[in-house]
Amino acid sequence: MPIDKSRWKLKVRLWVELHGRKLLGPGRVELLGHIHRRGSISAAAKKMNMSYRRAWSLVRDMNEVAGEPLVQVAAGGAKGGGASLTTGGKEALEFYQRIVDRLGRAAAEGSDY
Amino acid sequence: MPIDKSRWKLKVRLWVELHGRKLLGPGRVELLGHIHRRGSISAAAKKMNMSYRRAWSLVRDMNEVAGEPLVQVAAGGAKGGGASLTTGGKEALEFYQRIVDRLGRAAAEGSDY
Repeated sequence: MPIDKSRWKLKVRLWVELHGRKLLGPGRVELLGHIHRRGSISAAAKKMNMSYRRAWSLVRDMNEVAGEPLVQVAAGGAKGGGASLTTGGKEALEFYQRIVDRLGRAAAEGSDY
Repeated sequence: MPIDKSRWKLKVRLWVELHGRKLLGPGRVELLGHIHRRGSISAAAKKMNMSYRRAWSLVRDMNEVAGEPLVQVAAGGAKGGGASLTTGGKEALEFYQRIVDRLGRAAAEGSDY
């Protein structure tokens, strides 16, 4: 009798590396999404129950690893001004989500027997 | 100018949960593969630079979570006797590897633009 896989839950995690450094992962992408929707790093951090310091550090790291800013901060200053995704940041976000969607579909198809 | 994604490396991790507990992940599947090829938990553990205790604990956990043995140990005793995959264990291993292959292909297709 084959092993019963009907209740097995497949979990997939995607991350993106560049030059051996982490560029994007689930947490970073969630952060980008919140920054995009809320227009602020501190609001995004709050939404994720993350310290502002941590969120800012992730943003700085992403910008650095990407070799170009993914998030830009308005002139008002880091905490005061708003933040938004650059064109590259929006592309990175869409790219990641598209791959995650494909992976989800591939996992679902692959488990269907 | 679109962001340069040509050097982005996609990394995918798959794991399988059952009843909210981890059943399979990259390390567990690697362990199953070594047990299958070497016919021994201790040889598999050695290959992975893992303690025998740790390997045995993973095997016990997999067997428990799966609800049926994935690895069976020969009557000679845990450390003395050989170990092999049950039919269910072989199926679990193949299942996981098949999904990983599909995910790899899906990720590669998805990043191709």
